[in-house]
Amino acid sequence: MGKGGKGAEVATAVAGAGEEENMAAWLVAKNTLKIMPFKLPELGPYDVRVRMKAVGICGSDVHYLREMRIAHFVVKEPMVIGHECAGVIEEVGSGVKQLAVGDRVALEPGVSCWRCRHCKGGRYNLCDDMKFFATPPVHGSLANQIVHPGDLCFKLPDNVSLEEGAMCEPLSVGVHACRRADVGPEKRVLIMGAGPIGLVTMLAARAFGAPRIVIVDVDEHRLSVAKSLGADAGVKVSTRAEDMAEEIEKIQAAMGAEIDVSLDCAGFSKTMSTALEATRAGGKVCLVGMGHNEMTVPLTSAAIREVDVVGIFRYKDTWPLCIEFLRSGKIDVKPLITHRFGFSQKDVEEAFEVSARGRDAIKVMFNL
Amino acid sequence: MGKGGKGAEVATAVAGAGEEENMAAWLVAKNTLKIMPFKLPELGPYDVRVRMKAVGICGSDVHYLREMRIAHFVVKEPMVIGHECAGVIEEVGSGVKQLAVGDRVALEPGVSCWRCRHCKGGRYNLCDDMKFFATPPVHGSLANQIVHPGDLCFKLPDNVSLEEGAMCEPLSVGVHACRRADVGPEKRVLIMGAGPIGLVTMLAARAFGAPRIVIVDVDEHRLSVAKSLGADAGVKVSTRAEDMAEEIEKIQAAMGAEIDVSLDCAGFSKTMSTALEATRAGGKVCLVGMGHNEMTVPLTSAAIREVDVVGIFRYKDTWPLCIEFLRSGKIDVKPLITHRFGFSQKDVEEAFEVSARGRDAIKVMFNL
Amino acid sequence: MGKGGKGAEVATAVAGAGEEENMAAWLVAKNTLKIMPFKLPELGPYDVRVRMKAVGICGSDVHYLREMRIAHFVVKEPMVIGHECAGVIEEVGSGVKQLAVGDRVALEPGVSCWRCRHCKGGRYNLCDDMKFFATPPVHGSLANQIVHPGDLCFKLPDNVSLEEGAMCEPLSVGVHACRRADVGPEKRVLIMGAGPIGLVTMLAARAFGAPRIVIVDVDEHRLSVAKSLGADAGVKVSTRAEDMAEEIEKIQAAMGAEIDVSLDCAGFSKTMSTALEATRAGGKVCLVGMGHNEMTVPLTSAAIREVDVVGIFRYKDTWPLCIEFLRSGKIDVKPLITHRFGFSQKDVEEAFEVSARGRDAIKVMFNL
Amino acid sequence: MGKGGKGAEVATAVAGAGEEENMAAWLVAKNTLKIMPFKLPELGPYDVRVRMKAVGICGSDVHYLREMRIAHFVVKEPMVIGHECAGVIEEVGSGVKQLAVGDRVALEPGVSCWRCRHCKGGRYNLCDDMKFFATPPVHGSLANQIVHPGDLCFKLPDNVSLEEGAMCEPLSVGVHACRRADVGPEKRVLIMGAGPIGLVTMLAARAFGAPRIVIVDVDEHRLSVAKSLGADAGVKVSTRAEDMAEEIEKIQAAMGAEIDVSLDCAGFSKTMSTALEATRAGGKVCLVGMGHNEMTVPLTSAAIREVDVVGIFRYKDTWPLCIEFLRSGKIDVKPLITHRFGFSQKDVEEAFEVSARGRDAIKVMFNL
Repeated sequence: MGKGGKGAEVATAVAGAGEEENMAAWLVAKNTLKIMPFKLPELGPYDVRVRMKAVGICGSDVHYLREMRIAHFVVKEPMVIGHECAGVIEEVGSGVKQLAVGDRVALEPGVSCWRCRHCKGGRYNLCDDMKFFATPPVHGSLANQIVHPGDLCFKLPDNVSLEEGAMCEPLSVGVHACRRADVGPEKRVLIMGAGPIGLVTMLAARAFGAPRIVIVDVDEHRLSVAKSLGADAGVKVSTRAEDMAEEIEKIQAAMGAEIDVSLDCAGFSKTMSTALEATRAGGKVCLVGMGHNEMTVPLTSAAIREVDVVGIFRYKDTWPLCIEFLRSGKIDVKPLITHRFGFSQKDVEEAFEVSARGRDAIKVMFNL
Repeated sequence: MGKGGKGAEVATAVAGAGEEENMAAWLVAKNTLKIMPFKLPELGPYDVRVRMKAVGICGSDVHYLREMRIAHFVVKEPMVIGHECAGVIEEVGSGVKQLAVGDRVALEPGVSCWRCRHCKGGRYNLCDDMKFFATPPVHGSLANQIVHPGDLCFKLPDNVSLEEGAMCEPLSVGVHACRRADVGPEKRVLIMGAGPIGLVTMLAARAFGAPRIVIVDVDEHRLSVAKSLGADAGVKVSTRAEDMAEEIEKIQAAMGAEIDVSLDCAGFSKTMSTALEATRAGGKVCLVGMGHNEMTVPLTSAAIREVDVVGIFRYKDTWPLCIEFLRSGKIDVKPLITHRFGFSQKDVEEAFEVSARGRDAIKVMFNL
Repeated sequence: MGKGGKGAEVATAVAGAGEEENMAAWLVAKNTLKIMPFKLPELGPYDVRVRMKAVGICGSDVHYLREMRIAHFVVKEPMVIGHECAGVIEEVGSGVKQLAVGDRVALEPGVSCWRCRHCKGGRYNLCDDMKFFATPPVHGSLANQIVHPGDLCFKLPDNVSLEEGAMCEPLSVGVHACRRADVGPEKRVLIMGAGPIGLVTMLAARAFGAPRIVIVDVDEHRLSVAKSLGADAGVKVSTRAEDMAEEIEKIQAAMGAEIDVSLDCAGFSKTMSTALEATRAGGKVCLVGMGHNEMTVPLTSAAIREVDVVGIFRYKDTWPLCIEFLRSGKIDVKPLITHRFGFSQKDVEEAFEVSARGRDAIKVMFNL
Repeated sequence: MGKGGKGAEVATAVAGAGEEENMAAWLVAKNTLKIMPFKLPELGPYDVRVRMKAVGICGSDVHYLREMRIAHFVVKEPMVIGHECAGVIEEVGSGVKQLAVGDRVALEPGVSCWRCRHCKGGRYNLCDDMKFFATPPVHGSLANQIVHPGDLCFKLPDNVSLEEGAMCEPLSVGVHACRRADVGPEKRVLIMGAGPIGLVTMLAARAFGAPRIVIVDVDEHRLSVAKSLGADAGVKVSTRAEDMAEEIEKIQAAMGAEIDVSLDCAGFSKTMSTALEATRAGGKVCLVGMGHNEMTVPLTSAAIREVDVVGIFRYKDTWPLCIEFLRSGKIDVKPLITHRFGFSQKDVEEAFEVSARGRDAIKVMFNL
């Protein structure tokens, strides 16, 4: 922490941050993260300053680290990484009413423009001008402190930890998928893929009341994790297209009833084809995973059974519901946090390595 | 027809049909239609007997004639063809309240079971046990008379002709597509394909209030027909995948605004890809045409823009609306009827030939 | 049971009912129920014959007994009473596929016409020509055996008893109300009235995922029952209009958050006014109870906060969901069954008396 | 205006307004409007400065003038009046992309917070912290110039006049009501009340495709205006409750079919009762007018026919659609503008008097 002469100098540059130098994890080049000072922006009247306490690593963080880009988003300048986070309020802007210093909060990472048709129409996740943590050129939140709009900081109840708060971000993906696919107590749900997103989607489907959930993966271990977390049945499949017909029969048998909704959390031609064919007439398929872009799928035979296909882009308006699910115990995300790290240079490097290796790591969390 | 000794004998076998022999167009073998006697079933308490007056030829009729099958529906026994029809009531069952002898009616061709989940849930078009005109093994309606449930016969107002009544069937496809895609006064609409189904869908979109409609086809003549029927702009495209990016630009320029809804009335990988890419974030694509079953399409890039894909199977509950559109003049289907035939053996053969040739024939109609 | 000469004679008149005389509880005059023979109709191809095992008494049954009418439904001829029921299949029509002799089933009491706009539009509960158990002139189901359409008989899983099966009927009212009011995991729910319908509605709201439920009544005992069955908080109110403002404050405090949905299971001017005023802008109020017809309520101040008011008429398509809720244990209706009777003349008289007295009786059940 | 020494002095106080003094119509006391200087706020990066050209008088303006309050909104300080307006852009903030100096625009009057649940959930009209023209303490727009967020200024096509642009505000009420009541080509519509709001609602219902519209009023002249503007039939009623049953019969006969949607643009116990009783089972009633707050209505008999009641608060996201309706000619608001005034002190006084007298004045418009 910023003691002595130099610290005092820096402090003047760090708006409202006291005497301490604010450090963050910067993505500076392919496969290179560096902990360096991060100057906070000025606190606006509707902003809060948050001391980060828990930040998770997302697959997209790893992808930026490896490739310096995702689709048309290219990291051209050093960028602070991280966007799954929770912390404690240290300062509130003059216009912020619902929060106070000391409040423990989970942060929604995207700041939308509120001027475009999507924002006004209630689908702000599609905002034309979204500013989103760690999506270039916007900085992320793996830092000691950040400044963020107060209305995107959601107070945690006493029985929800800061780590669980940080998990609201991945959980939001599952919640948004379930909302888009209209999951509820009358919908039997098939989930393709038992990776981290498949798991949070499964937990969300359960919390939305799905009476039966079958999960599918190529990996026996992941299936057993999914079952330990609440899936009713798991079906192991191959990556070979020629096995599909037989696998669909197995999946439908495992459901023991018609499949109302399928959530494809893998996103390959084969997983999507399986989902489309396995789902009942009048059902819904939600494409969540992003394995392939171009897919070869039996779209007409789905269409003439009026099996609708919906997609998701991030989420909207999900934090209050996620927090309620955590508070009530309808969802327990703690078993998903498999690895924890501090916030030294070495920690950051190791944590990303563990996360990238995948398999036994579901969620890797920084405790700052 | 059917006078004298022989006719009198047959008449006794034709339930309630007076002294006349009821004739129908039977599909007896590949490319072979024969006009032969068709014995009517007994009139149930909720049935009516209708003298057919106008029957149109649908692409599916031609397909059955050529192939004796569509998908898993196989013509194994001789089957009366035809399902786009209107006529005059000649007899009403004891329980039929809303119809009387002499009423001019358009007929909805599908009799659903009302016992399955789809029927009970308001989506009877997905009925597990639908009995539909000219879908084997159910007989169609290209006949002098048929017996049909009264609740599927819809009275025509004085200013709607029987031919227009028969057009309610193809028009229903467009109406159902517009409903599924939520077309309305705020939705700018792209239509892929200017064949008969593209045209009725365009007319329906107009009647649902679409403020601007761009239609796309590979054929300049079809585009000019579409424009004469009300499309705001037409864009000629190729069948080459490599032209797609440029064509999408042209299509978007022709719209001059974001495309809210695309209705793919062709149903090929290229048309569907064009529709998915051209439609705005948060928009909808409805797959109406059935060119390909397996399609290679950029499904993920559509999904992450939350462009939803919906399909249609036939229609439900569309006749009253179609008739209202015809009555009010919001839709004029008369220009679609390009050819008319009587009901001799020669007429039937010629009519199907004309319909199969396509191009300048939009709708071929029998006047019985 | 029908033994000896006379029984054998009657048996020939009772279609398919073996040697036994079928007895039923007939409403013959005000306050007069008589157990008398009930001749079954012929079994149609889609019908089943069910031996009744559990029949509950509903408030409407008591009302018919006391008044011989409800609204414009007048009992003019002796009528078999009862409509909350479950039993065992004894015979199945030739067209019934999904049921077999020996199956334990819960019965949906209304047979709709499937020809009117409501039936076709997916709202068959509004059917223009509904035939409903014990709604004159249609006979009810408090009988040894009845004949009913197979598609209205829903198979019970092994872990759901016949009594619980009979409870699907009152539970359906709560389920339909929750669907109409769009209750789900994001909706905090206020329930006005802790009578039998308030209680099943509360159980349904819980099963639909409502995170917090406050229930209101004038009776402390009923509130304590409601809380023992799962309500989060109870608020005792008076019947005096002048207490309303203060009571609304108490109710909102008991919720500790905005009230998203209110379900008025009492249906008086005061309960409805309370619901309208207590509910947040953009929320919903569902009118379930039928205390008053004409009500004096602050409708404009609700309208300008866009608090919508929806009502319910019975239910539609609820049995599968009710059975799933019972199977999974999300709902336990057993504590609602407070009294049980056999099926002698004396039993029937006593049971209706107990049910009419109310208060400590929630549900009175016949075991046949 | 504003030339010479004094003007130059004032100009320095008027941000960006050149050498001219900006004048506005101030509500200073009951029945007292005064044209006085109005200092503009500083232009923010997303704001524009608009020269007002057309401002209409709304019933609420007249109400504030007479009472200095509406409900809990009290005029405590002098306030600029007016909120139905259109003008020409004179200056654009640095962040405004879609507008340029010289653009003719219609203005949406409400600036919402974009931080509350309603804003984020897509119902910004219910915003907890809305700042709305001429709703105290926020100033209105009857002024030479105003500063307003650019995203609330909607460019007018060449064929839509500034006066028509100002009419987007009252028209928005009708559009929002039609959306809330789900008016479309399948909905036969009853409108209670043929005042200004009844008329714009009727025009909107027509544009949404309603096939038949019956309008009801106590005044024969207003009915004839409504019919000249497009209503299919008018029914004259009394204010006496005892005439209601007979009037409902007349209204239903005038419709000649079931009434699917009723829009009560009067808002009295009798008009609402008429609407509730006249509407078909499964239909909708939208409460638009605000005659009474407490109403005595047959709510239970509506509820058990599942006739839903929805209300409206202002509107949201309506300007683009209103402008499209005007551009396409689907709606013509010009006949509604019955009186025009300039912007002198005398004009303002007279204009409000004419508007308050009502009857032959539908819309009174200032041309600035």
